[in-house]
Amino acid sequence: MKFAKQALLVTALAFAGSAFAQTPVTNAAINETEVLAAQKAWGDALVAISEANVQGGPTAAKALAEKVLDGAYGYNLGPVLFKPTLTQAPQTFRTTRAGALAYFVGGDANYPTDTGFALKGWKKVEISNAAILLAGNTATTMGNVSFTDKDGKVTVVDKTWEFKKDDAGRLRIVVHHSSLPFAAGK
Amino acid sequence: MKFAKQALLVTALAFAGSAFAQTPVTNAAINETEVLAAQKAWGDALVAISEANVQGGPTAAKALAEKVLDGAYGYNLGPVLFKPTLTQAPQTFRTTRAGALAYFVGGDANYPTDTGFALKGWKKVEISNAAILLAGNTATTMGNVSFTDKDGKVTVVDKTWEFKKDDAGRLRIVVHHSSLPFAAGK
Amino acid sequence: MKFAKQALLVTALAFAGSAFAQTPVTNAAINETEVLAAQKAWGDALVAISEANVQGGPTAAKALAEKVLDGAYGYNLGPVLFKPTLTQAPQTFRTTRAGALAYFVGGDANYPTDTGFALKGWKKVEISNAAILLAGNTATTMGNVSFTDKDGKVTVVDKTWEFKKDDAGRLRIVVHHSSLPFAAGK
Amino acid sequence: MKFAKQALLVTALAFAGSAFAQTPVTNAAINETEVLAAQKAWGDALVAISEANVQGGPTAAKALAEKVLDGAYGYNLGPVLFKPTLTQAPQTFRTTRAGALAYFVGGDANYPTDTGFALKGWKKVEISNAAILLAGNTATTMGNVSFTDKDGKVTVVDKTWEFKKDDAGRLRIVVHHSSLPFAAGK
Repeated sequence: MKFAKQALLVTALAFAGSAFAQTPVTNAAINETEVLAAQKAWGDALVAISEANVQGGPTAAKALAEKVLDGAYGYNLGPVLFKPTLTQAPQTFRTTRAGALAYFVGGDANYPTDTGFALKGWKKVEISNAAILLAGNTATTMGNVSFTDKDGKVTVVDKTWEFKKDDAGRLRIVVHHSSLPFAAGK
Repeated sequence: MKFAKQALLVTALAFAGSAFAQTPVTNAAINETEVLAAQKAWGDALVAISEANVQGGPTAAKALAEKVLDGAYGYNLGPVLFKPTLTQAPQTFRTTRAGALAYFVGGDANYPTDTGFALKGWKKVEISNAAILLAGNTATTMGNVSFTDKDGKVTVVDKTWEFKKDDAGRLRIVVHHSSLPFAAGK
Repeated sequence: MKFAKQALLVTALAFAGSAFAQTPVTNAAINETEVLAAQKAWGDALVAISEANVQGGPTAAKALAEKVLDGAYGYNLGPVLFKPTLTQAPQTFRTTRAGALAYFVGGDANYPTDTGFALKGWKKVEISNAAILLAGNTATTMGNVSFTDKDGKVTVVDKTWEFKKDDAGRLRIVVHHSSLPFAAGK
Repeated sequence: MKFAKQALLVTALAFAGSAFAQTPVTNAAINETEVLAAQKAWGDALVAISEANVQGGPTAAKALAEKVLDGAYGYNLGPVLFKPTLTQAPQTFRTTRAGALAYFVGGDANYPTDTGFALKGWKKVEISNAAILLAGNTATTMGNVSFTDKDGKVTVVDKTWEFKKDDAGRLRIVVHHSSLPFAAGK
């Protein structure tokens, strides 16, 4: 839970036709600014993991990915509803931290088809929201995310994120559904 | 549900050649500004009912009180947890609209001790919050409310309000606990 | 808002070392049973629209689809975050009721690529949740939905739904992201 | 956050016209059973503190009171909206843990009028709810609480509690307004 005004009532004032000196406001709700910041942080983190891979190899990339997962996702709160872009049955849904980590950086024998989405040399991530739903202490976005790699190739996905504000006031991804656009004729 | 921002994204984002022109944001959460406005509206309404009583008598006061109750309280959503300042057992809690109306304007044989709190000639209402809790699509306040009558006499009460934002984006009082300050030695 | 116990306090009882005769409980939260019922209703409705098309043609199908949309989705609350399985840019996201209706039954010149997903002769819909997140007055599910058509052909999609309980206690879909499974090598 | 079903997907099953073996459900919402249990725990704790005072004196009572406060109230989440029964201006509202502790066990020079509500030899606490509002991840109750002391004397108060389910799935009191019944003629 976040303190919009952290100052507490150091001095309790007698009511005297006026007001308390300071009114502490605790805010468990999520606003649009917080949502946009959390989305940007996700994109920046993906690029940073790609860069860590270039600079320090898979070990460095994995270490950063773990830090990102632990800070930005809600696996500490319970299973996360995560459908990554490129996963397949029977491992489509990555409700556990291990499954998410394997998707991002690969190298996990339990997820043999994972090659590491975050290792694909991403240079830029852009997010375009079709709509945002601020529901209270959760918020959901839907729209396109475009990934530009080191060769300038752009991949666009359809993406839904639901964020929850935790007790410490931090937004955590509790739902993440990503998919390649439907291609007619396939 | 209220649209916090219907404004367009005036700066077009160059997203893969096609940014969304507008991102609609639906906001079910309550912010501090909305809470303070709802509190002020409650105080203004009380003074207005007192004034309606002076100008038009009990019938006018009752008509306005019904309008206020239907607009500002959540009796349309279910029982309201309402403990008025001056009620007594066995009619302490006014979970129904009828019980609330009787408290504010009296004249209901089913509530024989009610004399009409809103008819006491109130001229001014001041609200001083000790703390505010924004919980998502509800928000709760606690603090003092002072009522000044036509003779300048001030009555101060301890008051808790919980507001809920309804589907139409309107804040409604779903909890209201009011009490006279404890007086030691009584 | 739903009344878990609709009985009101017909008679307010004096406190006498015991309890109130009846405690009304208003419940704005969503439980798992409600979620599963809403999912099943969605599947049943899709089959019903297909059947209406067989029995009464496109007009009957459209009439039923409108009724289903108005009862099961939250377009009355604001834009719905809806990414149907088979839509394409620039009409991927169907945040409006018109866009959703066109997707389900086609026949709208403004959505020229829509042929009517609900008209594909669906006979059976099965839902398998990978995980469920009950967040308060919203709930989100993620998993597979399989559609069996009149020839016994099965189509499986990855699907996320977020439901919101409205003021009347009805669950409404406010987020819906559906996608075909990723196929490696394509 | 509480896991209604903590079992995770040990084995991810391929979709085959059936279902996932286990669906983990994360539940951030509060139900009536949880509310009643939290209320009962509050009453039991008050009696336990009184008993600790008899058995071990003020030091033992204070130690237990601190444990109760830390487990049952939300001071770790931010200011609590707490208006105890017997406090007076300018210290009516106890939004800090220190203020709450002083109210329950006294002995704090910063709160000179506090004599320790929990030290009054309470033997029994009974709770009678006039209405309950389950709002999502918060829930609010209003009603009477009766306290019976060692001499059999009963004190009845009007009380409102708002509980919030924290990230660990524990209900915490975030709002608490208690007041003596209004006595006409005083």
